[in-house]
Amino acid sequence: MSTASNANFEPLVVLHFSNATPAATKEWVINRLTASQNDNDGADLLVRYDPDPESHNNILLIGATLHRLLVGAEELRMKKPYKNKALREFLISDINHFDNSQNHDSFLLKSEKQRIIWEEIQILRPAKDENFVPGVPTKAITHENDTVLNLLDSLDFLVSAFPLHDKEDIKLIERDWFMSKDALFKSQDIHKVRNYFGENVAYYFAFLEFYTKALIPTALLGLVVSFWPSSDFFKYSLFCIFNVIWWSVFIERWKRLSIKLAYEWGTMDLQIFERPRSLYHGDLQLSPITNQKERRYPKWKRTLKKYLVTYPIVMLCLALSLWIYFAYYAVQQKTDKRYPLEATAILPTAKLMRMVPSTGYSLLIIPMNLIYKKLAIFMTNYENHRLQTSYENNLTSKLFVFYFINCFIGLFYEAFFNANYGNVAQLLTVFVIINAILLKFTEQIGPYIFKRVKKNQLTRRGSVDVKVSDAVKQAKTLTPFEGTYTDYLTIFEQYGYVALFSAVFPWVTICALINNIFELRADAFKYCYVYQRPFAQPAWNIGSWHYAFDILSSVAIVTNTALIAMQPSVRQYFSSYTDAEYILFFVAAEHVLLALKFAISFAIPDIPHEVQIAKAKNLYESNMALRHERERKALKAQESLRKN
Amino acid sequence: MSTASNANFEPLVVLHFSNATPAATKEWVINRLTASQNDNDGADLLVRYDPDPESHNNILLIGATLHRLLVGAEELRMKKPYKNKALREFLISDINHFDNSQNHDSFLLKSEKQRIIWEEIQILRPAKDENFVPGVPTKAITHENDTVLNLLDSLDFLVSAFPLHDKEDIKLIERDWFMSKDALFKSQDIHKVRNYFGENVAYYFAFLEFYTKALIPTALLGLVVSFWPSSDFFKYSLFCIFNVIWWSVFIERWKRLSIKLAYEWGTMDLQIFERPRSLYHGDLQLSPITNQKERRYPKWKRTLKKYLVTYPIVMLCLALSLWIYFAYYAVQQKTDKRYPLEATAILPTAKLMRMVPSTGYSLLIIPMNLIYKKLAIFMTNYENHRLQTSYENNLTSKLFVFYFINCFIGLFYEAFFNANYGNVAQLLTVFVIINAILLKFTEQIGPYIFKRVKKNQLTRRGSVDVKVSDAVKQAKTLTPFEGTYTDYLTIFEQYGYVALFSAVFPWVTICALINNIFELRADAFKYCYVYQRPFAQPAWNIGSWHYAFDILSSVAIVTNTALIAMQPSVRQYFSSYTDAEYILFFVAAEHVLLALKFAISFAIPDIPHEVQIAKAKNLYESNMALRHERERKALKAQESLRKN
Repeated sequence: MSTASNANFEPLVVLHFSNATPAATKEWVINRLTASQNDNDGADLLVRYDPDPESHNNILLIGATLHRLLVGAEELRMKKPYKNKALREFLISDINHFDNSQNHDSFLLKSEKQRIIWEEIQILRPAKDENFVPGVPTKAITHENDTVLNLLDSLDFLVSAFPLHDKEDIKLIERDWFMSKDALFKSQDIHKVRNYFGENVAYYFAFLEFYTKALIPTALLGLVVSFWPSSDFFKYSLFCIFNVIWWSVFIERWKRLSIKLAYEWGTMDLQIFERPRSLYHGDLQLSPITNQKERRYPKWKRTLKKYLVTYPIVMLCLALSLWIYFAYYAVQQKTDKRYPLEATAILPTAKLMRMVPSTGYSLLIIPMNLIYKKLAIFMTNYENHRLQTSYENNLTSKLFVFYFINCFIGLFYEAFFNANYGNVAQLLTVFVIINAILLKFTEQIGPYIFKRVKKNQLTRRGSVDVKVSDAVKQAKTLTPFEGTYTDYLTIFEQYGYVALFSAVFPWVTICALINNIFELRADAFKYCYVYQRPFAQPAWNIGSWHYAFDILSSVAIVTNTALIAMQPSVRQYFSSYTDAEYILFFVAAEHVLLALKFAISFAIPDIPHEVQIAKAKNLYESNMALRHERERKALKAQESLRKN
Repeated sequence: MSTASNANFEPLVVLHFSNATPAATKEWVINRLTASQNDNDGADLLVRYDPDPESHNNILLIGATLHRLLVGAEELRMKKPYKNKALREFLISDINHFDNSQNHDSFLLKSEKQRIIWEEIQILRPAKDENFVPGVPTKAITHENDTVLNLLDSLDFLVSAFPLHDKEDIKLIERDWFMSKDALFKSQDIHKVRNYFGENVAYYFAFLEFYTKALIPTALLGLVVSFWPSSDFFKYSLFCIFNVIWWSVFIERWKRLSIKLAYEWGTMDLQIFERPRSLYHGDLQLSPITNQKERRYPKWKRTLKKYLVTYPIVMLCLALSLWIYFAYYAVQQKTDKRYPLEATAILPTAKLMRMVPSTGYSLLIIPMNLIYKKLAIFMTNYENHRLQTSYENNLTSKLFVFYFINCFIGLFYEAFFNANYGNVAQLLTVFVIINAILLKFTEQIGPYIFKRVKKNQLTRRGSVDVKVSDAVKQAKTLTPFEGTYTDYLTIFEQYGYVALFSAVFPWVTICALINNIFELRADAFKYCYVYQRPFAQPAWNIGSWHYAFDILSSVAIVTNTALIAMQPSVRQYFSSYTDAEYILFFVAAEHVLLALKFAISFAIPDIPHEVQIAKAKNLYESNMALRHERERKALKAQESLRKN
């Protein structure tokens, strides 16, 4: 076995095998990982078992030589700062012109090294003469398709694969991010976050901060409006118009910021050759892309699955969610009859009892969302998408539809069919509070306690003096990273409350603002201490979440004008209008606001001025370089002619 | 003077000087154009005077050696088909791997050669030791900024600069395009159009054809619906729903087609370093892009000009256009009183007299549009935009606003305020017919006759036997090309009539279809025989016109539902509804249709599958090539180690 010497070896990535994995299989994996690239098509990495006895030889530490990493960086077309400070695709032959390249240890970020290793592991195939998985004689290898990772996955031998957290690096970012007291009101250093977690996670935090900052003016205006002695119509419409403009500008400015970040991170014109997902299955066919045999799953089958299975199930879930709402509604009405509003003045318990059904309902929404999330993942897996991007788009749209209905249906019904604004206010309060408290608990505090308990178990079982190794600790106590979409969903739900109903209930924005200031830091803590480190994943925006938020903004214009129009006080303000005139007035107002939103999105250019300048500059310089090169060659040719 | 020998010289581009140009200045221009690139920073082109005495030495013919053209193609990063059939940036050192490269004459298209020469002329500067324009001692040269072309422009010495039409090439495309009888119902070979005119013009013709084809189903359905014995509500709403879906799909499918064309033409990821427009003026400042002194015009000045001058003028024009409409309206009402509807049965002249005002009004709209177009160009020039793209965007949006109001205000007023559908129908008829006849005349037949007359004058003045040279003919008889936006405006106006009012007047689509079948061929004729040849201009879509058509589609949903709702027969159909319920029903229907349009645009992927596959394939192949290259190098290194 070719384990590396201790001195040079920096463990970067962990493969965690299950107890059932035969030793021969593990040896085989190590052999494939360490085999040289040229002779045996291996990955040319450094591997060793974790020395901690607690690992039971199930934890593999993977590293690589600097040269191997540089080769990988070149293949992945990673961009690094060039001598003129612009980013440029890394080339080994040109390494001396890249910034910081004499500093061998820190030229590549740790997250970049881990990504390089992970990409290499993902495409690693069995050697050409191997016909079955060593240690498992029943598992045959199909050479056209199987990778080492696929085989391990299908045999259930792999518990997890993750890059190692780095305590020192975390210490460097956590102080300004969430650990110190004044971090609460500081902007994040998003570049540090990106360097540690990669672009994908950094975009989430950048978005959360940008959104939270955008809440400040609305929250303040909401506060002013709530206490301003004026007619309801004036108050509401002022707040509504402000919100339409503000959130349209918000979405556009976010687009600009995300392009600016993509430019600074070198992911703007990123072209990644997407490999099929490891779970993708199908028959072997000649691929039009690689011209090799690849698994192909016919499109019509997926379409059939969508129309015959997933869409009906989604509909069923929506129906169920509606049914639960109406069940709640029946109970609420019974309770309201039992404890009439007049009684609340006499009996304080009556007021509380009236709150019970809505609290119960909001508590029910959370597990429903969770169950649906699992179901959505299951269904999207079942649809068998080839690429990760289309997988995520399909998952997001399923989640979007369900969350939209499940979270907002009660509010819509109360607001637009019952016109019972007391109930709307009550539901909104409960939702926002429950969300703030319960989600914090289930997402962060719970797993953190779980982690502490596990850690205690670990140290109790092992000797007290010997410290358990980092890899073992992270493999056994941290939650595997599942992607950022849960976190986006949380913001999405909250943005829904803020955007859809805020014209009439301005205080929701204040709750959201306070919640988010803590949320950001709690999430940061979660990513550092509760989750296993995610592999850095290049990204150039927040993906389909952008559309989700944009759609919500448009729907918000409709709901808010309708809400305002339905207020009795506003109807009274326009008492000289007939019903038809009144409706037409508000329909016209709504259309004007929709046109305004569109005009704003059109008027604000997507690409910020500084990025345009920088791109033009790059292009100009490379054109000039080409021209000079050519002129130099021509001069040389002339000179050599003269000499002869 | 270094004129080329007759044998090798292929004249490609023409510079047409005014009679006032001093001979010394012309000599200077020729010197700059022919000076070598390395020694004197010249353009290294081939130049000669047109030998025709009719040219009075005012017409300069410009060509270039093949090597000079190849160098230019490399500098412009032109893409040519590589041996594996994919497009690749042209490199002289790699020329043998490009398709058709042994065929020196036809490797570069004529339009490409002309573009290369034109780009070179545009950046040509005076020699460093020249301090004033030869022949004009009063005109000093500012070396940081002045190009030869700028100087000639500012002295009014240049009548026109254009590439030469090629009779043989035109013969090859005209037969299938517009000359034969069956060409009327044939698809264009858009690639031939692109090869001759460049991407910019090709996109216009591709769009016109795509739009005309899209009219067929709506026209047919419109015909069916017009004669179908059914309730108005059913007929109208069927046609309206169909149109919403159809035109949404149309816009999305056009997006896909234009991306496909951009991919096939190699303009998809095109990055052009845009030079400032030659008319751009400002103070000399250090440019952040080129790091050299360049003219810069402060942004606040442009913003001020926009808010203080252009926007008020646009408003004034809109007001004038409204005023003219209401003047027409007053006259129409007087006429209607004088010739009441009942009289038309008795007096046939009464019916005609009733048509007079609306015909007059529609005739008035055309010169108003023309005057406004000139004004819009003048104002956009006055705003002093740096880049051609932002210049065109600003011009388009000005034209869009004015045309929208000027063409549709009368229809809107009649339809929504007067609910006078007789008038709407009358106006629509007159607009569509006048447009079809008059525009054909002013745009095509008029200039063509003008050209014939001029040609006759030319041959009459010269000797009868000696043929006038091509360059002289084209310089003196053809109209300079002014850009495609006039043609887009014509389609835009027509699409407005079709989209905004078709639910109630389905026959408009049939007129539009018939008109367009001829329009396309007439336009093709115009580009080949009436206009001077345009320089090929790379393009990857139809630019801001896409937005203009998209906005019109959205507005169309609003107008069509409103039109349907306002039909008395439809109101009767819903006679059991109260006014408020009736309005809410149609508002809801409108929102559903808007949501449907959005869903369609979301559901249809922008990039066609085959382009996705082709891009992935390219990426995969270049990744593989990189990898093999590296492996080969590693093997070599190993071998050389073994040898030592």
